[in-house]
Amino acid sequence: MLRIPLADLTTTIHQALLNLGLSNDRAALSARLIAETDLDGVHTHGIARLPRFAEMVRNNAIDLLATPTTTTTFGALERWDGHRGPGNLAAHAAMSRAISLAKTHGLGAVALGNTTHWQRGGTYGWQAAEAGCAALCWTNTLPNLPPWGATTPALGNNPLILAIPNAQSPIVLDIAMSQFSYGTLASYAARGQQLPVPGGYDGSGNLTTDPATIERTQRALPIGFWKGSGLSFTLDVLAAMLSGGHATHQLTTDPLQEVGLSQIFLAIAPTSLATIEELTTIATGAIDSLHSATPIDPTNPPRYPGEATLRTRAENLRLGIPVDESQWQKVLALAS
Amino acid sequence: MLRIPLADLTTTIHQALLNLGLSNDRAALSARLIAETDLDGVHTHGIARLPRFAEMVRNNAIDLLATPTTTTTFGALERWDGHRGPGNLAAHAAMSRAISLAKTHGLGAVALGNTTHWQRGGTYGWQAAEAGCAALCWTNTLPNLPPWGATTPALGNNPLILAIPNAQSPIVLDIAMSQFSYGTLASYAARGQQLPVPGGYDGSGNLTTDPATIERTQRALPIGFWKGSGLSFTLDVLAAMLSGGHATHQLTTDPLQEVGLSQIFLAIAPTSLATIEELTTIATGAIDSLHSATPIDPTNPPRYPGEATLRTRAENLRLGIPVDESQWQKVLALAS
Repeated sequence: MLRIPLADLTTTIHQALLNLGLSNDRAALSARLIAETDLDGVHTHGIARLPRFAEMVRNNAIDLLATPTTTTTFGALERWDGHRGPGNLAAHAAMSRAISLAKTHGLGAVALGNTTHWQRGGTYGWQAAEAGCAALCWTNTLPNLPPWGATTPALGNNPLILAIPNAQSPIVLDIAMSQFSYGTLASYAARGQQLPVPGGYDGSGNLTTDPATIERTQRALPIGFWKGSGLSFTLDVLAAMLSGGHATHQLTTDPLQEVGLSQIFLAIAPTSLATIEELTTIATGAIDSLHSATPIDPTNPPRYPGEATLRTRAENLRLGIPVDESQWQKVLALAS
Repeated sequence: MLRIPLADLTTTIHQALLNLGLSNDRAALSARLIAETDLDGVHTHGIARLPRFAEMVRNNAIDLLATPTTTTTFGALERWDGHRGPGNLAAHAAMSRAISLAKTHGLGAVALGNTTHWQRGGTYGWQAAEAGCAALCWTNTLPNLPPWGATTPALGNNPLILAIPNAQSPIVLDIAMSQFSYGTLASYAARGQQLPVPGGYDGSGNLTTDPATIERTQRALPIGFWKGSGLSFTLDVLAAMLSGGHATHQLTTDPLQEVGLSQIFLAIAPTSLATIEELTTIATGAIDSLHSATPIDPTNPPRYPGEATLRTRAENLRLGIPVDESQWQKVLALAS
């Protein structure tokens, strides 16, 4: 495992994106978002996805030059068309607009249709929190999750992000609707480990903690069983309805053609109602209470969403960002 | 099990609320909301809660005469104080205002602090959907759920409701953040049944499907393990921050003193962006796709959130609402 300084990682990604044909400013922003994903330890969604992005540019699934346009506006609500441009840039622009709407109207939302993979969803939660806004955002995905009561994938694992600004300790939750992603299942299987909790069904319809079995049955488990199944469905329909884009069932199951996604970016400005001091007192009280719950393992007390990310970020800024050698070679090849 | 016609149930609840001292109009609205909860088959949150409501009026935890007031407004966002009035009436007024804000601004939200138990959360989702709006709403609760990694309750099971308008088939999701409520655990235990999926931990820290064991350990499971734990925490902090009210850790664990709750009511008007026809096509396509997933049990295909409710509602309108005999006697006593 290499350790690459943030500046070097960012510069190399920037060059790779320039080589693909992205303009300088857009390549710089995209490179920052990708590098910060690895900086925060979310290695599944950082440079690991860059080769697939390049391939989807080359196969014309992603239109590198497309930027989102506004289709309809009504007060603090807007509908955008992403024109299958780079998904992280469209998502960043949509959240930026939602934040601006929230600062004018107290809250605001952009529904973005016809877009492409936004890479790390948490990126847009951190973006809102750092701008002083709370946020809810979510995306649909290709069908990869059976609904409760069925054996075939008809739902997406539709990541949902909630973010709350809180001085130097924002609360940022980034959860997919499946208990484990296929990426996580593959990691456990490669290490020969069982999952810590049941993650899906075996061929006989019994819950299992064996990752390879779930990869085979393709019957991953929604969070909370019927509850996550219903939540995934509802998020999908609402995103498609507001954006006028596709719902999960209209998306291909070919990951290299995963385009036409629908996403919601909703921001709320708490400082339109209260002082920073009042807001900080509330968040600090809740965090202190969480930390004082009796831990199962005293060396590993309960954490609030985002807490571990900040620790990882600080460590990686100090030591350099851990990068898989073979992934790094692929990024260097794209940048050369 | 008795079957009581909706009109009779409503009239009897109305009289009980008049006897407690509620004004005629407010008693009529509250009676409708409570009766419709039993009509929809959510018997844990309908007349079953009326004796506790009466007791909380008598012990002055609920101020029967209080109505919510607006504390702060900014654009499409408002902060209200519920003054510990009847929680269902305050919640209905807050969602009504959020709907009105959404029709003006595309979306709108009311953050309601210092309120009391809203009874069935789904009520406000149906209210929005029937008014043509999508909605997200949630409440915090007293601490009844251990955070992930802890053994003591520091989170609430904070119900989250998502609603989507869709002609005669709205999509309404109403989920608490615990896999099973204590009410549900008690029902399974009373019938001597095991839970269909793990619902908490036994005394050795192993997952269990035995409801009585979880009642004893008080270690119920959040939906999705660490994911529901993080979601519950984030919903709580955001509700307290926006409403200026209490977070879960500030609430007493005595159910007869469960006051000072914080709630969010957020409505979105899809028809500000699209025609009803376009919206209906999207929802219908997603529902049809869900219904066509291969069922585990062909007699019980996957359902969308709210689908079973509509069937129950139709049956109970036809046959009368099933009412537990002993609960009915308590309502009659309050109405006499």
